[in-house]
Amino acid sequence: MRKRDFLAMEEWGPDAVDELLQLAVRVKRGEVRGGLEGKVFAAAFLDPSLRTRSSFESAMFLHGGHMIVLEPGRSAWALETEPGAVMEGEGVEHIIEASRVLGRYANAVGIRVFPRGKDWVIERQDRALRHFAAYSEVPVINLESARRHPCQGLADALTLQEKLGDSRGRRFVLMWAWHPKPLPTAVPASAAIAAAHLGMDLVIARPPGYDLDAEDMATIHTLALQRGGRVSVAETLSDALVGAEAVYVKSWGALQFFGRVEEERAFRAGLRSWRMTLPALRNTRAGKGIVMHCLPVRRNVEIDDAVLDGPQSVVVDQAENRMHVQRALLLELIGNRK
Amino acid sequence: MRKRDFLAMEEWGPDAVDELLQLAVRVKRGEVRGGLEGKVFAAAFLDPSLRTRSSFESAMFLHGGHMIVLEPGRSAWALETEPGAVMEGEGVEHIIEASRVLGRYANAVGIRVFPRGKDWVIERQDRALRHFAAYSEVPVINLESARRHPCQGLADALTLQEKLGDSRGRRFVLMWAWHPKPLPTAVPASAAIAAAHLGMDLVIARPPGYDLDAEDMATIHTLALQRGGRVSVAETLSDALVGAEAVYVKSWGALQFFGRVEEERAFRAGLRSWRMTLPALRNTRAGKGIVMHCLPVRRNVEIDDAVLDGPQSVVVDQAENRMHVQRALLLELIGNRK
Amino acid sequence: MRKRDFLAMEEWGPDAVDELLQLAVRVKRGEVRGGLEGKVFAAAFLDPSLRTRSSFESAMFLHGGHMIVLEPGRSAWALETEPGAVMEGEGVEHIIEASRVLGRYANAVGIRVFPRGKDWVIERQDRALRHFAAYSEVPVINLESARRHPCQGLADALTLQEKLGDSRGRRFVLMWAWHPKPLPTAVPASAAIAAAHLGMDLVIARPPGYDLDAEDMATIHTLALQRGGRVSVAETLSDALVGAEAVYVKSWGALQFFGRVEEERAFRAGLRSWRMTLPALRNTRAGKGIVMHCLPVRRNVEIDDAVLDGPQSVVVDQAENRMHVQRALLLELIGNRK
Repeated sequence: MRKRDFLAMEEWGPDAVDELLQLAVRVKRGEVRGGLEGKVFAAAFLDPSLRTRSSFESAMFLHGGHMIVLEPGRSAWALETEPGAVMEGEGVEHIIEASRVLGRYANAVGIRVFPRGKDWVIERQDRALRHFAAYSEVPVINLESARRHPCQGLADALTLQEKLGDSRGRRFVLMWAWHPKPLPTAVPASAAIAAAHLGMDLVIARPPGYDLDAEDMATIHTLALQRGGRVSVAETLSDALVGAEAVYVKSWGALQFFGRVEEERAFRAGLRSWRMTLPALRNTRAGKGIVMHCLPVRRNVEIDDAVLDGPQSVVVDQAENRMHVQRALLLELIGNRK
Repeated sequence: MRKRDFLAMEEWGPDAVDELLQLAVRVKRGEVRGGLEGKVFAAAFLDPSLRTRSSFESAMFLHGGHMIVLEPGRSAWALETEPGAVMEGEGVEHIIEASRVLGRYANAVGIRVFPRGKDWVIERQDRALRHFAAYSEVPVINLESARRHPCQGLADALTLQEKLGDSRGRRFVLMWAWHPKPLPTAVPASAAIAAAHLGMDLVIARPPGYDLDAEDMATIHTLALQRGGRVSVAETLSDALVGAEAVYVKSWGALQFFGRVEEERAFRAGLRSWRMTLPALRNTRAGKGIVMHCLPVRRNVEIDDAVLDGPQSVVVDQAENRMHVQRALLLELIGNRK
Repeated sequence: MRKRDFLAMEEWGPDAVDELLQLAVRVKRGEVRGGLEGKVFAAAFLDPSLRTRSSFESAMFLHGGHMIVLEPGRSAWALETEPGAVMEGEGVEHIIEASRVLGRYANAVGIRVFPRGKDWVIERQDRALRHFAAYSEVPVINLESARRHPCQGLADALTLQEKLGDSRGRRFVLMWAWHPKPLPTAVPASAAIAAAHLGMDLVIARPPGYDLDAEDMATIHTLALQRGGRVSVAETLSDALVGAEAVYVKSWGALQFFGRVEEERAFRAGLRSWRMTLPALRNTRAGKGIVMHCLPVRRNVEIDDAVLDGPQSVVVDQAENRMHVQRALLLELIGNRK
């Protein structure tokens, strides 16, 4: 049987994702013990992590397994990611060997590799992730790539189900926020996919010029249609928030300026009002909409202290859910009871 | 019930510290097995560590638990520590979120954050540690802050009890030593608190200008009084060592020059004779006083090879005791058998 | 009883190595479970690692133990390695204390310390490793030093036995390859010792000026004689490969230019044809010789993609064997069933 990877939520199909979320609920309730005894998950972090690393490490340990954390380019060899490269440069080891070898020491492997901010046409292909997965002999988990952060998407979906109950048709606003740097689109795309998976009334509120990748938008539309939801975009934040039951605050860079940081900065200079504040929150349904964020969040830049420390913020529960969905994912991919 | 933190030895009260030390003795003898099965301790190291990290990692494992080691600013996101900050600078994640989130993945959390060497009036407030603890939902362990290194203090106390037996009234000299850099005062303050806790005859031998923080001195005096010991300061090393049964060698910076490294260096230029040598050691009680140090120690700068490699040095036993007191502390804070 | 270190394969003697390899075979077959419950292995990596670290971490976990990974100079204190040093410089902690203290938290300790590229006369003494071992109270494992990488040598021997069966008298070519940097000689020396241990017909094919250390060559010759094999050197790659059943590709720097990187680079400028290609592979016995490499390998510089991705490359099996020989080694050194 072919190994099964978890690279993007939409690649698993809705039924498999629903089953995973149901398992996560049972795991969180404490109904599933053990299952990963003697199992190893090796994760290569080419970029920083707090939640992903910690939540996976706890997830493995809580079920009897062990996580190996590697940091290529820091404590491990710098990785070359391009096939066919004549390796005379900085890369000391090819991702092909890293993937193959780690799979001999572990039952599943993961990789975090952010976009390098040079050329979206190239980087949107998620080549490092895809090559790593293609060469691995064991299941691969995407720990955030240029295009997707599917474990975050799973946690987002579980959080929405917990907080809203049946979330079909409920208004979910993915709200762009100003930030000092042009961030990747992996999280907003994955959050939108999660909302589409849940059949929500998804509104992407962003200033002109901040559309997500066109192929991602097509994926989101197709999934929303399939799941009985809908998708729209909005350019006026206050209007978009009206009736919202959940607001997912997130910044991302304008793809048209991808790799041109100074131009992108100038383009966003006038957009500081795109920030989650108490007044903005009052526009949500009965003023009671929940506020989500993947974290790390820049306080008083993306979201005000008053919101983050208030009763409508669910960001810590959302972060906790990272651990529970990943426990379910690991049990599903490499669990002993399968 | 309110969660219990371990931020400073004196905040627990003498009885609780005595109980902890008694448990550490039993743990070291091998009389306590397990107790941390399924438990996770997550520690954020904003500064380097060898002993603290290794000894906690072994402590958790030996009793069935697991330690997660994070390095914010290196492999994890750089942390902002000031409440109310408008986060447009280097800090990517606020310590509030780091604390809250880690507590969802772990049963206890720890933080190491040294002073930044700018302004003692601010840094002596230990704000990063205190904020981290205030926002955490689970017990917090101080892994060395600007003001305290209480796990070191516990290990110091256990070592003194082991080596001297009943240590009440015995002469303990906290000896300042020259060092190329102005080091923090957390360790000497914690060592003095440990000696005061044991009711010893505590002498702080340091050159003029090297007094510990006035509030720390008041804490030490109060505790010494309460425990039947006494505290004095001395400016002449050879006199101070006479009759000493334990000499704790340690360097620290002059607080009056805190943040002004060059001025502090000039101020200490003539103080190189403050070094533990074989001749100095002969001044101790019958020439048989034990020599302590928290490590890392700069050989032949703070303490000579001949002393460190001789029979009176107990620095390695002292380091070993870090593990045993921490096993006791973890069992006390999050143990299954509580 | 004196503690037993594993610093160099030849220091254990052939019988002990044979027993270790036999245990590794049984371990790999899954015939040995547990044995390291409650055991800790603490490893200090002064240089980067992917395989060594991951394979030891899995090895410990798979048998019930735990590995602590330290990175002195990065997340742990920078180490001074010279005895007698007056520590006023960069080194914050002496290797003496690091070794002694880690041994109190762990049942075995390891160290990786590459040559610093200054003076071979000094560095060939492997002082950091030897001091670390001399001061440790527990068994020490060499995780690659200036002179030896004995865990790699064990894995090489196991791989040769697996792939060739009885390897006595079979032709093994240690083939120098061009590389942009002058690499250490620890791996080629250890691979040659492994082949000598197996009684193979060992040919070291290298350009003039690339001889291994003379003392290492004497060790290899002596061992080969003892084990019924032989050793020769060759300057023409194509001739050397004729009849080879195994080719171990590896680059290393010219010791005569040790520490003079630019001169060494100029010296090797004309040697780019020393590369493992498909045509070169056809020179091996029936064109079917296996290709080995310790990894990381620079693709299309040391070995072409077509060779690495072809059926004769055993580099991933070889890397996997790192884990199995180390499981055997750890069971032998600190196993509960001893």
